[in-house]
This record gives sequence, C-alpha cells and structure tokens, in this order.
Amino acid sequence: MTVKCIIDEDKLDKLASLAVNTGLSIKTNQDLLITSPVEALPLVRRIALHAYKAGANLVIPIFSDSELTLTRYGYAPNSSFDKAPDWLYKGMAEAFNNNTARLAIVGDDPMLLESQDPDKIGRSNKAVSKASKPARESITSFNINWNIIAWPGRSWAARVFPSLPIDEAQNQLAEAIFLASRVNTSNPGEAWAQHNADLLKRSSWLTQQNFDYLHFTGPGTDLKVGLANNHAWMGGASKCQNGIICNPNIPSEEVFTTPHRLKVDGTVSSTKPLSHQGTLIDEIKVTFKEGKIIEAKAAKGEEVLKKVLDADEGARRLGEVALVPDSSPISQSNILFFNTLFDENAACHIALGQCYSKCFKGGNDLSKKQIQQFGGNSSMIHIDWMIGSKAINIDGLHSADLPTPIFRNGEWAN
Amino acid sequence: MTVKCIIDEDKLDKLASLAVNTGLSIKTNQDLLITSPVEALPLVRRIALHAYKAGANLVIPIFSDSELTLTRYGYAPNSSFDKAPDWLYKGMAEAFNNNTARLAIVGDDPMLLESQDPDKIGRSNKAVSKASKPARESITSFNINWNIIAWPGRSWAARVFPSLPIDEAQNQLAEAIFLASRVNTSNPGEAWAQHNADLLKRSSWLTQQNFDYLHFTGPGTDLKVGLANNHAWMGGASKCQNGIICNPNIPSEEVFTTPHRLKVDGTVSSTKPLSHQGTLIDEIKVTFKEGKIIEAKAAKGEEVLKKVLDADEGARRLGEVALVPDSSPISQSNILFFNTLFDENAACHIALGQCYSKCFKGGNDLSKKQIQQFGGNSSMIHIDWMIGSKAINIDGLHSADLPTPIFRNGEWAN
Repeated sequence: MTVKCIIDEDKLDKLASLAVNTGLSIKTNQDLLITSPVEALPLVRRIALHAYKAGANLVIPIFSDSELTLTRYGYAPNSSFDKAPDWLYKGMAEAFNNNTARLAIVGDDPMLLESQDPDKIGRSNKAVSKASKPARESITSFNINWNIIAWPGRSWAARVFPSLPIDEAQNQLAEAIFLASRVNTSNPGEAWAQHNADLLKRSSWLTQQNFDYLHFTGPGTDLKVGLANNHAWMGGASKCQNGIICNPNIPSEEVFTTPHRLKVDGTVSSTKPLSHQGTLIDEIKVTFKEGKIIEAKAAKGEEVLKKVLDADEGARRLGEVALVPDSSPISQSNILFFNTLFDENAACHIALGQCYSKCFKGGNDLSKKQIQQFGGNSSMIHIDWMIGSKAINIDGLHSADLPTPIFRNGEWAN
Repeated sequence: MTVKCIIDEDKLDKLASLAVNTGLSIKTNQDLLITSPVEALPLVRRIALHAYKAGANLVIPIFSDSELTLTRYGYAPNSSFDKAPDWLYKGMAEAFNNNTARLAIVGDDPMLLESQDPDKIGRSNKAVSKASKPARESITSFNINWNIIAWPGRSWAARVFPSLPIDEAQNQLAEAIFLASRVNTSNPGEAWAQHNADLLKRSSWLTQQNFDYLHFTGPGTDLKVGLANNHAWMGGASKCQNGIICNPNIPSEEVFTTPHRLKVDGTVSSTKPLSHQGTLIDEIKVTFKEGKIIEAKAAKGEEVLKKVLDADEGARRLGEVALVPDSSPISQSNILFFNTLFDENAACHIALGQCYSKCFKGGNDLSKKQIQQFGGNSSMIHIDWMIGSKAINIDGLHSADLPTPIFRNGEWAN
C-alpha cells in the first residue's frame, strides 16, 4: 500500500528512531506492541524498521480508525456502549506480562466525539477502563518499557490550526511535534540525555525536600495537595521493573509525584481545556475536601466530567501532581494542542485516578496494600488536567515549617 | 482519515452488505472480528456500517500491512521467525468462544514473499499455525458464523493484470471480484439464495450416493480418493453450531466433503498455481499411498511445498475434496487470480491438512475421536490446491459396483 506522506520524511524518521531507541530503549528479542490510528501508518512503518534493526522480535500493530468509531456511535445498538473487546485487552496484558514493550501513537481528532451522546461516551469509556485495567496497570507500574509519541493527524491539525489549508495545517502540526519532541536537533538522542539530566536534578531536589504539602495559589485556585508518605519525584527517563530505562512520554517537560489520596483540600481551576477521549472539557473548577472532589463544574463538557468522576471510588481523588515551568518550549510555542501529551507539558497539572507506584521510594518493591497505606490512590482512570500558568505560585510545606518557594509566577523559584 | 477510493462505491457497498447479511448473517448483539489488510479500509468501514445497522455490538478490526511484513523479513532477527503473537490468537479464540462472528478480507500481493528465505517463511507459517490452532478450529468446526471476501489490493491487481496501468488494473480486479461475488445483480441476496439452492441439489445427491471412492483421471492424474465413513457433502450456505446459517466463502462455486485420511492412492497434478502465504507453488505433482503423500514435486516453490508437507503428521494427508465444474463463472472469466478464494472456485481441488467436522452426517455432534475413526484428517494446516480442468473426468465408486460418472470433461455428467 502506497501512502502519500506530505510530512518531512527525515524528521519523521528521526522521531521513529527516537521513540524506539530513547523512548522505549527496546532490547534484543523484545516484542513490541504498537497502538496507533491507521492514519499514522507511515510512522508505524518507520518505527517497525528501527525496532527490528534494534533487535525486536515481533512488532505487532493494533490500528484504530476514527471513522469506524463514529460509525459505531451513529449506528451501534445502545447496549454496545457497555461493552469493550475484553479478549483484546486481556491479550495485551498477557503480552506485557511476557515483557512485550508498548508504544502508543496519538493523533486523532481531539473533538471527535463532541456531538455524540455523553451517556454513551461515559459508558464506553467505563467499559474500556474496566477491560484494560490489567494492561494499564502493567504500564502505570512500569513493569515494561513504554512510550507515547504523536502523529500529526489531519483532523487534529485542523483543530489546532483552523485558519490554515489542511496540508499546511498538518505540516505545521508536524513541525510543532518535531520541535517539542527535540527531533529538530542534530542528535535527538543526545538532546534527550541532557534534558533527562536537567529533569533529574529538579526531581532529586524535590524528593530530598520531602514536603508534606504543595500549596498552589493563583486566580480561582487555592489548593493544598498533601503528598503521599515516602513519595518520590520522577521526571524524564524512568527505570522499569524489567530493568530497562525508558522515556515514557515524548515530549515530556514535567516532574511529578503521588499526592496523598486523603489529604487534598481547597479549590482549583483548570488553565487549559482538557480533551478527554474525543470530548473537550473546559473551565473546570473543583473543590476538594479530605482528598475527595465534593463539587465539580465545567463551562463545557460538564456532563462528561461528571461521568468521569463517577467512574469509580478513586476517580474523585488525585493520582498525580506535576510541575512544569511556564518557560517550557511547549508553553512558549503558544500552541494549544488539545492533547494531554503536549498540553500537560505546557503547565503544572494534576491527575484524577490511578497513581504511579513508581513515584514512591522503593516503588518497584511495594505491594498494592503498602501503596494504599502510604496514601496512593487507586482507580481505573488516570486523567491529567492543567492547573498551571504564568499566574500560579507554588510553595512546599512541612507541617511545622515556613513555606519553601517552589514556583513564582509560573517558573521555578530557584 | 480520508481514503481515496477509485473503486465503484455502489458495488463496494453491495459487497459489504452481502458479506454482513448473507456471508455472515450477523445477528443482533453479536460482536464481529474483522481481519483485513489496512489497504482495505474503505471496505472495512462499509462492513462496520452494515454490521451495526444489522445490530452488531462491537466491530473489532485487526489490520495487517504488507510493508510491515516485508520489513520484518528484511530486518528482524532470525529467531523472530519461530515466533507468533500467541496472545492475539488466544484472544481471538476466546472471542469466538463467546460467539463473536469472523470476517476475513483477503487482498494482499499473492507473491509478496517470493524473494524471501523459504526457511523463514516455513518457520513463520508454522509458528502462526500453531498459535492460531484454537481460533482456526472454531472456524473449521463452524462454531461461529464466518465469511471471507476479497478487496482488490493494488499489488494483487498488478499481478493479475500486469500489462494494465495500476489504477485500471485495480478497477478490473474489483469488477472481477464483484462479478464472481454476484454483486453485479440487482439483488445480490436473492442471487445467492438461488445459487445456494443449486449447490444444495448437487451436494444432497452426492451425499445420498454415499460413494466409497472418487476416481479422478486426466493428464498427469490417476487418483482414487477414498471418502470418509459417514461423510456428507456441503456447498454454499452452512449451518453453524451457534444456529446461524452463513455463507463462509464469497465467491463459492464448490461442493466438498471429507476424504478418508488412510484411503487415497495414486498420482495427481495441479492444474493451476497455488499462492501460499506469499509464495507461488506451481506444477505440483504428488503421489499418495494409503492416504499419505510419499513423493512431491513442484516446478516452482518446491522448497516451500516440502516445508508445508513437513508441518505436522496430518499435513501429508487430505482434509477436503471439492468439485467445481469448468463452466463456473470464475473459470469462464479466464482470470488467474493467484488467490485460493477465487482459483479454487474455477476448478476441482483437494486440500492438505485439517478436515471440516461439518462434512459428516451429524457432524456438529461428533467428537474429535469419532471424526478420526471415520477417517477424518487432523492437522494445523488446511491448504487447497487445484486439480480440475476441462480434461478431468471423475467417477464415483462403491466397492463392488460399476463407476457412476460424476464429471466428464470438467462438467457435471448429469
């Protein structure tokens, strides 16, 4: 099949190589499972090439197609939306248990489902979350090396650059992805090594401080985020339980850790829209009490937000808090990507739902029960949303001490 | 994703509807698993639409890509070729156990692997056969309703019509597929109902005759094919164990039954090339003794043929014998498709390997042991190859009687 590709082939190849060799650090005889929109076939083909060159055993792509998704919403019986292909997710979990690496390519229209019934969307998301729980836990627990990168999908590009002709919009989005992913450099692998060193410096300092609370203040935000006992800050490269060091997100500008699921109090406002599985949720404002969201509003997509919060017991509590300076290249690009992989790297953010067991001292060896005792949250969802901006200050607090400035006006305080 | 489709959209839609409503007869709340080349996306989208309109619950496509396959042969480590994605095939088997219907779309270049290492091809086929055995048995046992149709892939079209420009070749192949699949009629569903009635008349007569042997004679062929005890002839529509009547092959012109795995003797020559998983095997000549192939030659692809025969104990014995008159529309088209779904319907054929449990009286209720006692063969392969032509005569024999003419000069004798 010949696929017309109007995107810079050289940079696309660098992105593929970066995903395989830095993102995944794939090892000889590892299998690789790729999930991808069918539109990203030219990128998948290059990834497979680099993976096999690096010694991968089998590269198995699982493709999705936006039009098939819309056909389902338009014509499938109502009961369909409580179903998910359990056998496929179970199989993926089995693959991960056998040390298969995982690469996810994002690139669909972020507003694909905007005119669909929120009840169907909510039920479908819940069914998928439930079916994919074991596979997702292999990823969130870093049992295996994994990576997410982006393909500049045409419908996505049209959302980001609505005033441009579609070919030009796709090219602009491609260039923005290349820039954010650091493949516009002569040696992307080296650029990532330096970037990882910078993120490690920040995360090590924060882990060492061992703050009890972070205090976020800004317009519409006065939020105390208690941190889990024995929490550790992470960022950039991550050592997986299979011994491989991977860079799970490309791009990535964040350092992040686990909040205490019972110790979050106050009010917080989102600073960017959240694109959640095809629906845009904007101007979120929620109030936490003892870790739990007791009030939630959104100017747009409130119904979907409320369904997300009702997904399970842990969906109203935090599983992640992340710090990103306003000077991050993605923030500076002033592009709103409507995609979490990018937008979360333009601003500080929090995530509802499942925590990363990795974000504890000795995380790899902790049981689920220990993680819960330390305050880690558990849920079948993990949804990031942005609360950072130029107007946000953050202080770190120990119970009895004076605040330590961490961020001032959206930047690292030192 | 916008896909340029130069094929007649109206006929394509009729093919999709035929596959769903006549091929599968999909039922409300059934899931549908589609395996397809990514190139056939326009057809997959139409099938999903018709499936959801017919009440299907989930339509799950698993796409393959020829270029990814070639990349594997070019760059994957040698050990890769002993591996298959076990978890995926296991998942498919589980889906079929839960009454998921199965639609396979064929359309890849039949000579895709012609310049690849036969050893790698053989090992890879063996690994896939082994991994997919439970899923394949659900299909060969008709546990669930299934169907195979064709997409006019561009590389395939170039093989069939090498002298035409590629767009025109693809269109010609599309028209040949539409004609053979009976979608060139005003009501394809009705055309298939009539066709099924014709095939039923032939298969009922043959079942009633209860021949001990078929005797094939022609140039290079003098073969006695013993039929299994309690064998039944099938053709066209087939009642599945889930109660649904499906048309497994579109097109289909054959009536077929189960040979006795220990009672095939003589020599037989192929009359058309066999395209086996990307390799062309041509001018096959084999000798059977007491059911087993004791000598095998091929002018082309002999090495691949020999690997096929060594796949397992049952690979050297017959699992199917099928009768197709030379006047069949596909034979009359004089097109060599290099694809079994079509070419097997232009000529009488036999299949190495696994038998269909369906081809016994009371087949649905028989145990594996009973099928073996009746003479049914068992193998992880099932490979059809063509032995019929205008020059072939076939007689039916009971041990003590005179021969009953079945075919004369490639046509039904009456």
